[in-house]
Amino acid sequence: MKNVLGLRCVECSKEVSPEAGTYTCPSCGSKGGIMDVVYDYQEINRLTTRKQVTNSRDYSMFRYLSFLPIYPESARPHLRVGWSPLYKPQGLGKSLGMSNLYIKDDGQNPTSSLKDRASIIAVIKAVEEKAPTVACSSTGNAASSLAGNAAAMGLKSVIFVPSRAPQGKIAQLMIFGATVISVQGSYEDTFRLSAEAIEHFGWYNRNAAINPYLVEGKKTVALEIAEQLNWDVPDWVILSVGDGCTIAGVWKGFRDLYLAGWIDRLPKIAGVQSTGCSPLVDAFLEDRPWRPKEENTIADSIAVGVPRNPDKALNAVRESGGTMVAVTDEAILEAMRQLGRTSGIFGEPAGVTGTAGLKALVEKGVIGADEKVVSIVTGNGLKDVLNAIKAVGEPLKVEPSLQELLMKMEVVE
Amino acid sequence: MKNVLGLRCVECSKEVSPEAGTYTCPSCGSKGGIMDVVYDYQEINRLTTRKQVTNSRDYSMFRYLSFLPIYPESARPHLRVGWSPLYKPQGLGKSLGMSNLYIKDDGQNPTSSLKDRASIIAVIKAVEEKAPTVACSSTGNAASSLAGNAAAMGLKSVIFVPSRAPQGKIAQLMIFGATVISVQGSYEDTFRLSAEAIEHFGWYNRNAAINPYLVEGKKTVALEIAEQLNWDVPDWVILSVGDGCTIAGVWKGFRDLYLAGWIDRLPKIAGVQSTGCSPLVDAFLEDRPWRPKEENTIADSIAVGVPRNPDKALNAVRESGGTMVAVTDEAILEAMRQLGRTSGIFGEPAGVTGTAGLKALVEKGVIGADEKVVSIVTGNGLKDVLNAIKAVGEPLKVEPSLQELLMKMEVVE
Repeated sequence: MKNVLGLRCVECSKEVSPEAGTYTCPSCGSKGGIMDVVYDYQEINRLTTRKQVTNSRDYSMFRYLSFLPIYPESARPHLRVGWSPLYKPQGLGKSLGMSNLYIKDDGQNPTSSLKDRASIIAVIKAVEEKAPTVACSSTGNAASSLAGNAAAMGLKSVIFVPSRAPQGKIAQLMIFGATVISVQGSYEDTFRLSAEAIEHFGWYNRNAAINPYLVEGKKTVALEIAEQLNWDVPDWVILSVGDGCTIAGVWKGFRDLYLAGWIDRLPKIAGVQSTGCSPLVDAFLEDRPWRPKEENTIADSIAVGVPRNPDKALNAVRESGGTMVAVTDEAILEAMRQLGRTSGIFGEPAGVTGTAGLKALVEKGVIGADEKVVSIVTGNGLKDVLNAIKAVGEPLKVEPSLQELLMKMEVVE
Repeated sequence: MKNVLGLRCVECSKEVSPEAGTYTCPSCGSKGGIMDVVYDYQEINRLTTRKQVTNSRDYSMFRYLSFLPIYPESARPHLRVGWSPLYKPQGLGKSLGMSNLYIKDDGQNPTSSLKDRASIIAVIKAVEEKAPTVACSSTGNAASSLAGNAAAMGLKSVIFVPSRAPQGKIAQLMIFGATVISVQGSYEDTFRLSAEAIEHFGWYNRNAAINPYLVEGKKTVALEIAEQLNWDVPDWVILSVGDGCTIAGVWKGFRDLYLAGWIDRLPKIAGVQSTGCSPLVDAFLEDRPWRPKEENTIADSIAVGVPRNPDKALNAVRESGGTMVAVTDEAILEAMRQLGRTSGIFGEPAGVTGTAGLKALVEKGVIGADEKVVSIVTGNGLKDVLNAIKAVGEPLKVEPSLQELLMKMEVVE
């Protein structure tokens, strides 16, 4: 990894070598500061130019290999992760009164969420470090993506999920052959138990807030957005926030591109949570440290009362000059319908929370109607069908008779 | 459409102009023979060379525009349909004892099934013909893909589904704003009612067996397979069969490439059904006309007792020198597990039925261990979570305590 200088603690700025084998800061005591990967941007530019990347025929996140903390020769799973489509859906733009709106549909990934970007890095690092088993705790998407990528890589996976995780996500990861532990408690309980078990068994740790490499996978969504817009940076990038790792990854991606000289400005980052679980939005809006909150939202992927990466998330928003907003679950369901009906995009509740927040920020005048905005849809709606049904209701039931159909359709119209 | 010479009846070979506005043969009486699109292969080669396609940066099925029956200037929805990944999963190959096995994962499409390839053509043709509403009957995937593509195109959609369609598919298409009619009967009842209603209301007909343009969209999966293998045609392509339109499309794709001189041989096509609903396999194996069958299989997308395109399907298999096989629902569930565990690919039951059939044909010695085989996974497993749960069972439930976890894991191991 010629492109990586080291890992730097986000709390105390201590730097360690990536070969040191530690994932948390050795100087920050028992708390263990979160680390950031530090790159040699000159080396990145020696390895690949922006033009070379633009001409690359590798239509996956690995077109950005020079920006990733893996050895170029490391084994990789066959799954095609990344290079998800960036759409400019006219219908949605119109319905929100926006002229320059893009949707990055990251539900179009092998296991149907953005988390594949982190999990594929996790399994590559696990094999680099000769670990036979990978593990994580997750509200669902990180889990199924880890299980899927581990299966493709020939690794075992152990997954801790909170009891509320939707059945689609559970089924998906069991299909991938994971050992699944359903923890009868909150996400906080789940995270804690996974950390204890990972330490006990010596499994490779894919918990995004602890493992500094995962945010590097997530950042590729930002690299793609920049390239898909011909390196012309949007005014805003807006997405949902749970643990805080994904928004941190998005910001890291744009910062890395900027520091490497591939883009000439940075976007503002907007983070959105549900009013049912908004510890980071509250902290941001009230300009105070975050405090734990209850987890009362249908958007299970971001129902995180005790976020694991609050500082990186809040830094991303603040440094970018961005903002945060909370939206109700009803607004989230409405965003599901709106994206579906106007654009043919089916997002899960947490996946469309960014779009719901966008609507709120446009109505408040924080985001202008003509600004160039990218809203990231982070997961596919098929992952959580029960909430989709909540959003839309039931179909019209008829006996196989045209007469009955005509009668019932008249009643409906 | 300079590349299209006309539509030819598959029964009586009568040809009509594509401008004639008829979708079934005017000479075949009330039955209405199914039509095939006839191309001018010289014109195709004048429009694009194989090398130009190979260098195209349009990573969707529209890289093959010269092989499609649409006007180049026609409006298209923004959704990225096609160019799904072709994997060579070592783990799966190993577990089946095969050295040269590829999986085409068509669950990686905007609405998570191969049917997007047909539906995007349907909405393009509907707009070409100035129809404001599109309609179809479907066991699910054609429905959700039509609804999604219609939403993206700004069209209304009316969808007829049999009452047994899984809730994931229903929710998906209601999210896309479709008017959904759940017909309390079989797929046959559903098809019949939709045909009556389509005629009554004058909606654009997306029923694949009637609309000759849809198979043209489906054939792009074959074009992609050829290109992704560097135009080196596989020995076998194997996939599930319901109505028969998809397998007909695959064969049409390879034939068109061959007739245009882009490939130098044709693959054998193997079609697979569930033993719970195998009218076409039975007809093929017993070399007799097909007869209606009950619809008793978990593979809902291919539970078609009265297939709409039996001739095209049987022709595809026979002309190619291929074969057909039926597999039990248990073998289908096992294929779901096998694909998931060894490859990180999650297919729905009908989606993996081809892979289950491959296993059977390898065991029978019909397909050799070193032959180059492409198995098409036609839909994403998230569409039918209840059957996935059947395949895998429930997770391990534990209270948030390491001690309990250690105890329960010991019991499991």
